[in-house]
Amino acid sequence: MKWYLETGPEGDVVVSTRIRLARNITEFPFISRMTEEQGQTIIKNVKDALFSASSAAADEFEFHEMEKLTPARAMSLAERHLISPQFAKNKKGRALLLSNDDSVSIMLNEEDHIRIQTLMPGMQLRQALQKANLYDDLLDEKLHYAFDENIGYLTCCPTNLGTGLRASLMLHLPATFQTGAIPSVENAISKLGLTIRGTFGEGSDAKGSFYQVSNQITLGVTETEAVENLYTIAQQIISQERAIRETLKKQSLQLEDKIYRSHGILKSARLLCADEFMSLISDLRMGVTMGIIDNVSLETINSLINEMQPATLVAGAGRKLDAMGRDALRASKIREKLV
Amino acid sequence: MKWYLETGPEGDVVVSTRIRLARNITEFPFISRMTEEQGQTIIKNVKDALFSASSAAADEFEFHEMEKLTPARAMSLAERHLISPQFAKNKKGRALLLSNDDSVSIMLNEEDHIRIQTLMPGMQLRQALQKANLYDDLLDEKLHYAFDENIGYLTCCPTNLGTGLRASLMLHLPATFQTGAIPSVENAISKLGLTIRGTFGEGSDAKGSFYQVSNQITLGVTETEAVENLYTIAQQIISQERAIRETLKKQSLQLEDKIYRSHGILKSARLLCADEFMSLISDLRMGVTMGIIDNVSLETINSLINEMQPATLVAGAGRKLDAMGRDALRASKIREKLV
Repeated sequence: MKWYLETGPEGDVVVSTRIRLARNITEFPFISRMTEEQGQTIIKNVKDALFSASSAAADEFEFHEMEKLTPARAMSLAERHLISPQFAKNKKGRALLLSNDDSVSIMLNEEDHIRIQTLMPGMQLRQALQKANLYDDLLDEKLHYAFDENIGYLTCCPTNLGTGLRASLMLHLPATFQTGAIPSVENAISKLGLTIRGTFGEGSDAKGSFYQVSNQITLGVTETEAVENLYTIAQQIISQERAIRETLKKQSLQLEDKIYRSHGILKSARLLCADEFMSLISDLRMGVTMGIIDNVSLETINSLINEMQPATLVAGAGRKLDAMGRDALRASKIREKLV
Repeated sequence: MKWYLETGPEGDVVVSTRIRLARNITEFPFISRMTEEQGQTIIKNVKDALFSASSAAADEFEFHEMEKLTPARAMSLAERHLISPQFAKNKKGRALLLSNDDSVSIMLNEEDHIRIQTLMPGMQLRQALQKANLYDDLLDEKLHYAFDENIGYLTCCPTNLGTGLRASLMLHLPATFQTGAIPSVENAISKLGLTIRGTFGEGSDAKGSFYQVSNQITLGVTETEAVENLYTIAQQIISQERAIRETLKKQSLQLEDKIYRSHGILKSARLLCADEFMSLISDLRMGVTMGIIDNVSLETINSLINEMQPATLVAGAGRKLDAMGRDALRASKIREKLV
């Protein structure tokens, strides 16, 4: 079962937790300066390390040479945050190890030789870090990581030096957004070494009020400190979101109207573009978490958010689709799921 | 059963037929110059004439002194085209005889002493005229109508001189409207002695694309000629509307999307104002007549159009309602009817 078909702790606000570790192998130069052969050797070494370290891994993971994936399939992986958009666009000399439940992905020859990523539903920072550490240790046994006693892990980009850790939470903040409080959140957390940005869509345009909150500091802190810091600050954002939702609930008729309409359109439309879908599903998600809508599960919503993204839809269709065909397919798949 | 709970001929485009006869009693001066007592005598005489002429009439008709009606009740009658808006606003010295099924209304001391009006579903010009003539003859037996051998019936306003007849069809022309062809219809029929105007809303603003097409000429033509003329021209407007609907059907995905969304919002919304309601029900009506929506009857739609108008809603609620209360009541009543 895919990881996102379950709802995790604090699921009313926290959609998912993501941990990413950046690692490099000491025998090889950084990506920018290595040869094609060296790149292939890295891929082979990591793959062998994973599959020899654990007999289960061979069943659990699929290995993909990125160049063999169709553009839609590659973009679909990026949409679901299993790989970076850059990794999807520039596939040459790159490979991916992906667990069957989509919860662990190991990108090879991205910005660093190795990027281990774990995904979990809801707020599970410690658990996701633990899981990432497990694969990290497993590879560490067979490979020689570039590591400095004083600095920590050596990475291609200095912003990752030290822990090489990026911890992120995907938060659903429709109430905070509605009251115009996102900029003040942004301002407050940037002073605490965190960033917030829209999960879907480019730049500050946060489609459906889904936000990614991540740590920025990797140097001079331990993994645990970084994760604890993110946890503490996220708790405040979550509390504020819940408080605003409660306030909105008191002026409930307009809110209910908006939520029921969005639900009604999702169940009725014959054409739905990605942007409108994100906005409607955001309303519906808020309605479900607030107990206004009771015949739709959070799991259904979370899986729709994952599966209705443009490239994922196209990759699943297995045929060419123009924009209208995609919007029609999206609408029809949503109607199947939302009875 | 109310007349509008049935669907008549050509119901896909023709919502209803209305016939109105203007009559005056020869012994009394026109409204503008008569005394209050004369007005009361007219009311008494017409009421007695109707109730004595037919024993059934006493059971079939309710008599209302307009001043005894609440403003909401009076406005509700106007919304349902049973009386004129002026008659609802200025109630002094005026009375109404209204049949139980709302298909016959006799306004007393409106612009003329007597205005007999019949309403029927769909295209039923001859039948509605026949019915109006029946009540006209019935009153004519007991009263002395102001009538001139050369001119015909004498009316207060010269525009009604002659037949005193106004025949109207309420047409639903969403496709004609969508293609921007209403002005050309307006232009063409004005040359043929007809007018077209929005049924709901003021002036040229036709809420929900419902239009009233009426004859203008009353002098020098017979009732039958006037009605035949309206019938012939209406047939052309109807054919054009149907042809455009067929064309739209070929680009069906966007049309279907629009119709299903409107249906979805009507079934889901918690707040619906009158304007939005008219626009959504217009889409739904088009969808039903085009066979796109098959689980809603035209009768349900026609009754909603009648019953969801602002004053009718308030009159039915039997309690004070602010704008939001009215919009909430409208939304809830619509959800009951559209399962």
